[in-house]
Amino acid sequence: MGEFTAVGKRIPRYEIREKVTGRSIFGADVKVPGKVLWGKMLRSPHPHARILRIDTRRAEKLPGVKAVVTAKDLPFVRYGAFVKDETYFAIDKVRYVGDRMAAVAAIDEETAEEALDLIEVEYEVLPPVLDAVEAMKEGAPLVHEDFARYEKTPPIPNPKGNVIAHIHLEQGDVEKAFAEADYIFEDIYTVPMAHQAYLEPHASLAMVEPSGKITIWTTTQASFLVRSGVAEVLQVPLTQVRIIPTEIGGGFGGKIIHKLEVAAALLARKTRMPVQMVMTREEDFQVTSPRHPCHMTYKTGVKKDGTLIARKVRLVFDTGAYAMSGPYITNATANRAIGPYRIPNFVVDSYCVWTNKANCGAYRAPGSPQIVFALESQMDDIAQKLGLAPLEIRLKNAVQDGDKSPTGMVLQNVYLKDTILKAAEQVEWGKRRGAEGSRRGTKRGWGMATSHWFVGGLASSACVKVNEDGTIGIITGAIDLTGSNTSLGQIVAEAMGVDPEEVTIRTLDTDQAPHTALSAGSQLTRSVGMALLKATEEVKKQLFEVAADELEASVEDLELKNKKVYVKGVPDKAIPLKALAQKCLTLKRGPLIGHGSVADMTPVPAFCTQMAEVEVDPETGDVKVLQVVAVQDVGVAINPQLVEGQIEGGVVQGVGYALTEELKYVDGKIRNAGFLDYKIPSALDAPKIKTLLIERMAHDGPFGMKGVGEPPIVPPAAAIANAIHDAVGVRIKSLPLTGDKILKALKEKGSNEG
Amino acid sequence: MGEFTAVGKRIPRYEIREKVTGRSIFGADVKVPGKVLWGKMLRSPHPHARILRIDTRRAEKLPGVKAVVTAKDLPFVRYGAFVKDETYFAIDKVRYVGDRMAAVAAIDEETAEEALDLIEVEYEVLPPVLDAVEAMKEGAPLVHEDFARYEKTPPIPNPKGNVIAHIHLEQGDVEKAFAEADYIFEDIYTVPMAHQAYLEPHASLAMVEPSGKITIWTTTQASFLVRSGVAEVLQVPLTQVRIIPTEIGGGFGGKIIHKLEVAAALLARKTRMPVQMVMTREEDFQVTSPRHPCHMTYKTGVKKDGTLIARKVRLVFDTGAYAMSGPYITNATANRAIGPYRIPNFVVDSYCVWTNKANCGAYRAPGSPQIVFALESQMDDIAQKLGLAPLEIRLKNAVQDGDKSPTGMVLQNVYLKDTILKAAEQVEWGKRRGAEGSRRGTKRGWGMATSHWFVGGLASSACVKVNEDGTIGIITGAIDLTGSNTSLGQIVAEAMGVDPEEVTIRTLDTDQAPHTALSAGSQLTRSVGMALLKATEEVKKQLFEVAADELEASVEDLELKNKKVYVKGVPDKAIPLKALAQKCLTLKRGPLIGHGSVADMTPVPAFCTQMAEVEVDPETGDVKVLQVVAVQDVGVAINPQLVEGQIEGGVVQGVGYALTEELKYVDGKIRNAGFLDYKIPSALDAPKIKTLLIERMAHDGPFGMKGVGEPPIVPPAAAIANAIHDAVGVRIKSLPLTGDKILKALKEKGSNEG
Repeated sequence: MGEFTAVGKRIPRYEIREKVTGRSIFGADVKVPGKVLWGKMLRSPHPHARILRIDTRRAEKLPGVKAVVTAKDLPFVRYGAFVKDETYFAIDKVRYVGDRMAAVAAIDEETAEEALDLIEVEYEVLPPVLDAVEAMKEGAPLVHEDFARYEKTPPIPNPKGNVIAHIHLEQGDVEKAFAEADYIFEDIYTVPMAHQAYLEPHASLAMVEPSGKITIWTTTQASFLVRSGVAEVLQVPLTQVRIIPTEIGGGFGGKIIHKLEVAAALLARKTRMPVQMVMTREEDFQVTSPRHPCHMTYKTGVKKDGTLIARKVRLVFDTGAYAMSGPYITNATANRAIGPYRIPNFVVDSYCVWTNKANCGAYRAPGSPQIVFALESQMDDIAQKLGLAPLEIRLKNAVQDGDKSPTGMVLQNVYLKDTILKAAEQVEWGKRRGAEGSRRGTKRGWGMATSHWFVGGLASSACVKVNEDGTIGIITGAIDLTGSNTSLGQIVAEAMGVDPEEVTIRTLDTDQAPHTALSAGSQLTRSVGMALLKATEEVKKQLFEVAADELEASVEDLELKNKKVYVKGVPDKAIPLKALAQKCLTLKRGPLIGHGSVADMTPVPAFCTQMAEVEVDPETGDVKVLQVVAVQDVGVAINPQLVEGQIEGGVVQGVGYALTEELKYVDGKIRNAGFLDYKIPSALDAPKIKTLLIERMAHDGPFGMKGVGEPPIVPPAAAIANAIHDAVGVRIKSLPLTGDKILKALKEKGSNEG
Repeated sequence: MGEFTAVGKRIPRYEIREKVTGRSIFGADVKVPGKVLWGKMLRSPHPHARILRIDTRRAEKLPGVKAVVTAKDLPFVRYGAFVKDETYFAIDKVRYVGDRMAAVAAIDEETAEEALDLIEVEYEVLPPVLDAVEAMKEGAPLVHEDFARYEKTPPIPNPKGNVIAHIHLEQGDVEKAFAEADYIFEDIYTVPMAHQAYLEPHASLAMVEPSGKITIWTTTQASFLVRSGVAEVLQVPLTQVRIIPTEIGGGFGGKIIHKLEVAAALLARKTRMPVQMVMTREEDFQVTSPRHPCHMTYKTGVKKDGTLIARKVRLVFDTGAYAMSGPYITNATANRAIGPYRIPNFVVDSYCVWTNKANCGAYRAPGSPQIVFALESQMDDIAQKLGLAPLEIRLKNAVQDGDKSPTGMVLQNVYLKDTILKAAEQVEWGKRRGAEGSRRGTKRGWGMATSHWFVGGLASSACVKVNEDGTIGIITGAIDLTGSNTSLGQIVAEAMGVDPEEVTIRTLDTDQAPHTALSAGSQLTRSVGMALLKATEEVKKQLFEVAADELEASVEDLELKNKKVYVKGVPDKAIPLKALAQKCLTLKRGPLIGHGSVADMTPVPAFCTQMAEVEVDPETGDVKVLQVVAVQDVGVAINPQLVEGQIEGGVVQGVGYALTEELKYVDGKIRNAGFLDYKIPSALDAPKIKTLLIERMAHDGPFGMKGVGEPPIVPPAAAIANAIHDAVGVRIKSLPLTGDKILKALKEKGSNEG
């Protein structure tokens, strides 16, 4: 990618010095002048109950309490992106432990807590349904009785009982193909609810101006969605709500939907004082939007040579008490459910089901870590049965350029095989099965998994301006979770022929920013990058018109590079960008500025392959991930250092999902809602990671980039499960891959073999 | 102006509730996290002295002092918009009382003050020159010895000695015309230095990010000029300086050039802590940039019938120690110096002269209150001599549409006569001369004055976006001194067919904002309004393309009003803006956004006439202004309530200039640097004001508007001087029109008559 000057540069994130010196302002750090009240939420202690009575009078009388709000303080609004099934405060029923009942603003946290205890709520406890498969059965308690009357965004196919949506995809004749198969594999896999475990809990501070206008500082991935969400619940125009996104200490999909913002705003409006709300760690674990548990049945028919000919997939997504993005994830995952393989005959049934648990939602590559654990585990079992190397069966069936996705989209820029082959170069396959580990009695093994992700592009707009000295300013609302602002700066620098250091970018609030997509789904840099490129085209058009005049050349003959406009092929004939910027400013056509706007973009597939080496202690079942080779098809890496950082982070997060992470429900309540009990990998648990990039220009993305954030978290669970199988010969079909499960499997295997 | 819906509405300023409830954040109100240091400036006590030695060591050792900076801490940079004659800290010489020597940052104000006292400076006092006429003489002390070597922006004509610029304009044969005149009048008028007397003193707070980037909150009319000014002095790119303009408590031209910002930034950089600096009232009076004193000679030749045939004007502007905007004001005022009259033969010589006083600069309608005092006083004397009514001589000679300005610009939208006639309707002329006043022995009189101002337009850019609910957002860096943000909101609302309340506008900082003109010269709303209109045209183009599709109509047949896109003439065929905005957002073409950019615009003349009634006590010379009729040609009033507010403010400020305001130098130092001694009119001193608007669409301005801020301050001094003459028959040719001067004149008149 040698022709670029700014793109491809390994420069540090623009804001990194702020972060490492502790000067960044995160959600809970926001300070505003004057006394700030503390807000707390009263939440349901029951997974399912009827609300008989709520009495806030004792709480209101407590000295130091400034306001208590309940559903009575809001207009009646049911909301939800796909099914309008949620009210901000519960009405009539509560549907999970954590459902919002009331909120309190008081002079300090202790008083607010005390006030919560004084709110009297009388419940009639109802039997909950806590498992999605159970919830689908006839006669299961209904989480929502009024589903038929709820407004739905079409298509919500086949809703019934607790089933919010049932997606059905079909191609070929799957039963006929099974009949023709040499082997049929049918397995059930389950994965638990897992939390994003961002280090910064949800935090919002709301102020209401005398005009009634609401300003909310909040840690979010989606300031514009939070704005429209808050405006919807409060029934005010968008101009009455201003969302200022703070620095964000991780999101991973868990900070998209508004959480505390409405309560903070409502309390601020009632008290006429600023109100700050910060979730405790326990609260955050208990009530936010973790990754869906999924019950997955994979039935696959193959020919002896390893050709996949039929696959039948049944996915049951447990989406919790309210639909949120569940229907979307259920649908999008169905489209990826057969894996990145050519399978002529398939049926996919994907269900989104209410239960009396926390609302599940987006978590990095939503849906994919689940299904890839299943399908890539089965791929290894198939390979083993057929005497093929894991590599072989995947290469044999891998999708290729021009193949169609299950929904008929023609795939372009398909580099799956490249990722597999590049990863394989790093590993001595075949030598390792059951090799001795470093510690006495341990066994080593390698496992691999591949995956694909569709990098979309969401409607975004942005502006680019040229300062009087030829430096550049970007006007955007893009929220920077992963260094995206730096990548966007590099994209604009490349287009404008300046150094990345000569570009400023700063995330604007919703009043000020051009409408910008949320930061999620690996699409932000692609979407905003495209909008910015359009903006630079406009700016360059303006610039070239003026330069053509000055250089006595025609616009078509001009080019912009090295901070100068040149007549192509005449290196002496050039004007510095600075001189042109100054000329435009006052004399020629006014300040140089351009805007760009893109609608939702056609997704481009991105592939990755990971290979993991583990060491398993057969006596304890203990698994240590020694190393991971992660190869990813990224299009062009705008900033390889940031891309590699994302991949490393994804791998480590995937290791946690594989080995230890699980939100454990007991009696309908999460019992490990804290970092002591919900164990994520620490730096010491991280394997050695080797990241390798497949850099081939994508046909449609700024300077040929694809997205990079989602893919790396997808393969680790399957790769590690396969590596465990390689090491000690047991197949674990449920996450996490705990020592208990391995020991139990080893014991069973022993008794079978003995 | 009935065809408008949003334009012409009397709506309150968007931010007014913030202001009246005390929630607006002005310069000194800015708070940032962590310990903030206090900065103070050491200034020269001498009007003119050589710096022999400066020793900061004792100050640096004072406990609590964090940093001391002097010229040594800056690169050597001479700056100035027209003549690069200034360094931020004085080097070699100080040139006025207040010239910057050093700055200190300490833990609190007291410690900083104490540290100033510990900085040792050894001066060799030089003879100062404190009067511009004196400064022009051969042998006067030179304020700048190195003028020849200074960089100048061409054309700085005829520089010599202390004369920075000498503008010469000439037309016809003035000496021949004088020879042909029936009468010749020659008078000398003088006006003093007057301060803008904004209620909020200069205040800045600087923070330096670990990356070295400087953020400065400051009360300014010109964030982009401050940015480039600070970057120039510190020699860093514009991307390294971010100026956040705070709410501003008055500017009137006095907050254009950077003052404290560089010192605060330098101290913040050295200490790595935030540094706040706020001028004391005395400091602000002593060292900022007041209105130029001017020595004016007007020689006018007339025919018996009152036709003006020749005028010779000599203006000497005392610009103080550094040129700043002096050359610009000297030049621009020369162009207005013969008044809004047809005079075929004229010579104007306008001089900008250094003295050892404070740098004079822009103050509301810079140059005009000075010359209009002179020329409109003389007009009355001419009228009286010829036996004409003040009205008659002005109407007879008034410029008209199609006339040329002294520089040859063809004047359009000339409504001078309209303002004169409309004002006259309010007043019973002729009856009042020397009428009895309300208090025993007092005399009443009426006086009038007209004036003209060229409303320019300065390069600006801005963006407009449509929110998902059809409400509108403006993206701008326009600084709102006078309600301009509200007017801009009304302009955009009008163009987009929505209510003004459905538009948000918030002033962005220099990193984020499209490049925007400074808020000065009555051009902001015109300049940014034009940029915004261009932006709305772009948005409407996008909107209509999508709507044409939906409505199966052609783009040309569409119109946008009442929040809907209609097919013209088919009221049933319409789509709500909201529906289109949502469609564009994701499906069609991406978020609706447009930008607009304008270069410097051709000025349009704006006229006003004021008539003042005074009561003069011949025993004390005391003058009370009873009422003022102010008629102003404003084009279309975007918001008549705001326009009237500006006119009322201008009149009162003009009354202060007429009667009481004068910065008094004693031994080269201002001795009345505070509101006890520098008397501005309070609410009780304000006359009854009747504002009347001439509303005729200007050919080139958003919805036909002109600017309104400058003109109303211009006529009061002359109108009041003429009214005094009308009341008691004495002509005072120097401002302010104090009781002493009137008594002295009455005494002289008495002895002459006696």
